[in-house]
Amino acid sequence: MPLPQEFHDLARQVNNWGRWGPDDEIGTLNLITEETVRAAAACVRSGHRVPLALPLRHDGVQTGAVPGRINPLHTMTAVNHELFGPGTVATSDDAVTMGLQAGTHWDGLTHVSHSGRLYNGRPADAVTAHAGATVLGVEKLPPVVSRGVLLDVARAHGTDRLPDGHAVTPEDLDAAEELAGTRVRAGDVVLVRTGQLRRYLAGERAAYAFPSPGLSVRTPRWFHERDVAAVANDTLTFEIFPPEIEGLWMPVHALHLVEMGMLQGQNWNLEELSETCAELGRHAFLLSAVAEPFTGGAGAPVAPVALL
Amino acid sequence: MPLPQEFHDLARQVNNWGRWGPDDEIGTLNLITEETVRAAAACVRSGHRVPLALPLRHDGVQTGAVPGRINPLHTMTAVNHELFGPGTVATSDDAVTMGLQAGTHWDGLTHVSHSGRLYNGRPADAVTAHAGATVLGVEKLPPVVSRGVLLDVARAHGTDRLPDGHAVTPEDLDAAEELAGTRVRAGDVVLVRTGQLRRYLAGERAAYAFPSPGLSVRTPRWFHERDVAAVANDTLTFEIFPPEIEGLWMPVHALHLVEMGMLQGQNWNLEELSETCAELGRHAFLLSAVAEPFTGGAGAPVAPVALL
Amino acid sequence: MPLPQEFHDLARQVNNWGRWGPDDEIGTLNLITEETVRAAAACVRSGHRVPLALPLRHDGVQTGAVPGRINPLHTMTAVNHELFGPGTVATSDDAVTMGLQAGTHWDGLTHVSHSGRLYNGRPADAVTAHAGATVLGVEKLPPVVSRGVLLDVARAHGTDRLPDGHAVTPEDLDAAEELAGTRVRAGDVVLVRTGQLRRYLAGERAAYAFPSPGLSVRTPRWFHERDVAAVANDTLTFEIFPPEIEGLWMPVHALHLVEMGMLQGQNWNLEELSETCAELGRHAFLLSAVAEPFTGGAGAPVAPVALL
Amino acid sequence: MPLPQEFHDLARQVNNWGRWGPDDEIGTLNLITEETVRAAAACVRSGHRVPLALPLRHDGVQTGAVPGRINPLHTMTAVNHELFGPGTVATSDDAVTMGLQAGTHWDGLTHVSHSGRLYNGRPADAVTAHAGATVLGVEKLPPVVSRGVLLDVARAHGTDRLPDGHAVTPEDLDAAEELAGTRVRAGDVVLVRTGQLRRYLAGERAAYAFPSPGLSVRTPRWFHERDVAAVANDTLTFEIFPPEIEGLWMPVHALHLVEMGMLQGQNWNLEELSETCAELGRHAFLLSAVAEPFTGGAGAPVAPVALL
Repeated sequence: MPLPQEFHDLARQVNNWGRWGPDDEIGTLNLITEETVRAAAACVRSGHRVPLALPLRHDGVQTGAVPGRINPLHTMTAVNHELFGPGTVATSDDAVTMGLQAGTHWDGLTHVSHSGRLYNGRPADAVTAHAGATVLGVEKLPPVVSRGVLLDVARAHGTDRLPDGHAVTPEDLDAAEELAGTRVRAGDVVLVRTGQLRRYLAGERAAYAFPSPGLSVRTPRWFHERDVAAVANDTLTFEIFPPEIEGLWMPVHALHLVEMGMLQGQNWNLEELSETCAELGRHAFLLSAVAEPFTGGAGAPVAPVALL
Repeated sequence: MPLPQEFHDLARQVNNWGRWGPDDEIGTLNLITEETVRAAAACVRSGHRVPLALPLRHDGVQTGAVPGRINPLHTMTAVNHELFGPGTVATSDDAVTMGLQAGTHWDGLTHVSHSGRLYNGRPADAVTAHAGATVLGVEKLPPVVSRGVLLDVARAHGTDRLPDGHAVTPEDLDAAEELAGTRVRAGDVVLVRTGQLRRYLAGERAAYAFPSPGLSVRTPRWFHERDVAAVANDTLTFEIFPPEIEGLWMPVHALHLVEMGMLQGQNWNLEELSETCAELGRHAFLLSAVAEPFTGGAGAPVAPVALL
Repeated sequence: MPLPQEFHDLARQVNNWGRWGPDDEIGTLNLITEETVRAAAACVRSGHRVPLALPLRHDGVQTGAVPGRINPLHTMTAVNHELFGPGTVATSDDAVTMGLQAGTHWDGLTHVSHSGRLYNGRPADAVTAHAGATVLGVEKLPPVVSRGVLLDVARAHGTDRLPDGHAVTPEDLDAAEELAGTRVRAGDVVLVRTGQLRRYLAGERAAYAFPSPGLSVRTPRWFHERDVAAVANDTLTFEIFPPEIEGLWMPVHALHLVEMGMLQGQNWNLEELSETCAELGRHAFLLSAVAEPFTGGAGAPVAPVALL
Repeated sequence: MPLPQEFHDLARQVNNWGRWGPDDEIGTLNLITEETVRAAAACVRSGHRVPLALPLRHDGVQTGAVPGRINPLHTMTAVNHELFGPGTVATSDDAVTMGLQAGTHWDGLTHVSHSGRLYNGRPADAVTAHAGATVLGVEKLPPVVSRGVLLDVARAHGTDRLPDGHAVTPEDLDAAEELAGTRVRAGDVVLVRTGQLRRYLAGERAAYAFPSPGLSVRTPRWFHERDVAAVANDTLTFEIFPPEIEGLWMPVHALHLVEMGMLQGQNWNLEELSETCAELGRHAFLLSAVAEPFTGGAGAPVAPVALL
């Protein structure tokens, strides 16, 4: 079952292959310039720090639906171990096994492929079981620090949480941008709040996962026109799931990661940020969201922070 | 073999127990205020982003000397897997097993105990095999964002790398501060460069690990007097190893983590930062170094970035 | 809440501490002699091999109820990797993360303690986070090969599966022994079939786990009187769960492992064995069930086989 | 660089594709019949049990040379955890991360491929990162129980350990068979002792790994002519390494696994068995060596035992 023509039409509209040269491996992160970083720093006015990562726990957001994407198994390899003999300083150490996309994370550019291709036309088989992503790996990304803008779609709709079937449209983004009081511009990282994470925070893991509101297949064009550097939101599926077009699974993933070369973030906790932005009346901030640099990684945990 | 009197004397001089109340779990991170964050943002003048984390790889800095602290085992759980049937969008996913203190990391406040006590007088047995750190866990830390100051001790000594037996002294810190051209103040995060990481970067893993230059047992008092929020450096052992005082193992760890309640960072790559600071003639920056929030973690990977 | 007097009375009746000397670390496996092994070999008449292990899979018997006891996460570390260049022989390799007690396994003698003691009076704190079981570890066990006897309690009750609340009593064991047509004797390994595993095989994971039929608190005495070497069954909880005596949790575990020093096996697939024994009219066999020798292990996966 | 003609000639001589039908997934294990098992049981005369597995430890035989094939990381997920409240029965649990081929193991039939093919002509891409071995997985193997025969090549050479460059030849096998006093026959599992493991047991891990004595490229034909069911030895590389024919890497693996469909075992500890066989003057025994049944496994840990 090949991808439908509708997908290919959208793909052509947002494609960035070759835009930053044939060897480019970082895609829209090229849009973050030193000027962008300076502008981001200028957003820090009161000195608030808002963390955006969920705790990494055995009862995290994964439900077992995706084999291999396991919640963190955190174990102690030493507990108050007196390494140098009785009465000496004691150490506690720990280890973890987890899916790189299990919690608050960035999808790397190799997380999806279609038609045998990755971003910038690289062959999909450049990802191997042995070495992971031999091109476009997350370890090659520059530090993701930019101006962040919260597009609080739930709040713009006057609700805590969008309903399950809600596909976030370009019109929704426009309305949230209006609420934000700032215009999204080149190099920005956009955080789209649906409120769906409230389900997880309320202990409803299955309901959080699926069905889920999320980005419409029409939004990649919006992000492309604004030359956004990256997009993250507060859902597990990122895009509306089940999908809008029957049989077209994960089109937003394919458009962002493969066609645009744009990072996507999932399971970001935007609840406190929503409150803070509303209180301060400011929705732009310095966002620091550096991917853990796993060599060959198709994704990476991240502990983002917004500074306002 | 109890800890010697010399240690207890030092401990008394730097102890912070009770300073932020009996229930405090974040120690010297209390010293980072909103004003500190604003001052940090003011350091961002040119918009440089300098990453400070080592790539997370199977041939990372661990040599096997500490059982359990294994280098990352990165595996793919899917490679271009056509989840929804042939011809559909394909996904690649990955998982990892690693020691939380294996690469570039923060030691959490429970990483060491002595005399049965953790920071703020908490009992050491609050760390359990089952739940990890039930108090003072890394998931409780606020986002570590502050003004960072590079104290480039190697450069101040006119060398690329301090010799193996070099204990970094308060006098070394003074000299490096002089070179930095800024005075370390309350809430700063200090990065101490020894140049030792160059060994790892040159492929000399064993030589990197041990013996190693590192902080002298006399430096905690220096950090305490300046009310530093956290300290990181570019070694595996953090402190001079083997230790200065025979039979007194890991005294700096015990003073920082247990007595002061101050985070320590290890295996930070300060090489590019050293070059950038020297070129710009500025050694203060906005440092964003948010610990991955593992619930119950005694430590955490971190992907720090300096913004100048 | 200390253990009730009733427990201590039972404990006294079955206690084996000191029976094989103060340094013994293998408990009732001492009862397997060379003669036992010869007698076991004599049970092999037709040459049938019946495997008793469940496949090790991500959708194994664990439901997440016990944190850390995760089903196997099996990942490929190489897939047809041409290690020595294009066109050469290619290799596929794999790795796993799993709870040692996640699938078909033996509980090691340190899996439980009570009143601060392990089997043979060893202090419970001989189990450490750093080294695991420093005494009584599974790596110290001799190969578990003996005469196996199937006590098919479900079949003796004329049913496929005992009901949830069914505590397997000494009288049940007597009836099943009658059906087996052989008398359980010193050094035998007894396999008790409840039929509960049929639930897992039918895809009912939650129902398999709990509530569950299982051994009554009265059975350890039966095993003790017969000088059984080890006992395994086809449930997750091993003993009746919830327990027979309110507030007395896991008494059978404590009696077997701590008092008797007797291995327990769980999640053994006895379905094919039940059919084979019924067809052949023989319920005794050579059982080979060697624990994977994890140094410091409190338990171990095992792939048992019955030879008839 | 395609495989040389010499390899293809050897391959033709030992090929078993189609021998047990086009759908066969167990290869030479078909040669183990009920009669074989009975004959194996008849070898149990004195009742000795000799374990053949190495302990599974963090300082196991792996040296890091093969990325991903990590020694076991054994961690405790609970240590004397009073699950049901203070004073109740306490439990200790553990977990492990390890390469399936890290210790004493069987290579499964998908462990190698050549020319795009697995055993029985199955396409190599039937092994996937997502599901592992979708054909020929170790979970499909019948229990490996058969007559085992020790071919003690080192002893036949009058040495404790063959020298590094020693390729075990058909003539060596003949001489060891002469020493064994029994003729290897269809369905037997042959254990070839080189003595190389003594290096690991003496703490010389690097020297154990490589260079190593091992099977010559001429031995597969010997095993094929005798219709051996499986072969294991006491080395890391199994075959002579570096190889006998320049540029022809791993030919024995390819002949055994791909052409013959015959399991290979590595890192088996044959030292005690060598002593026991010499003392008893018997080199045939019941071998029980059931692979841990990992679904999709390309290999599996095994804890073999010889019964004499």
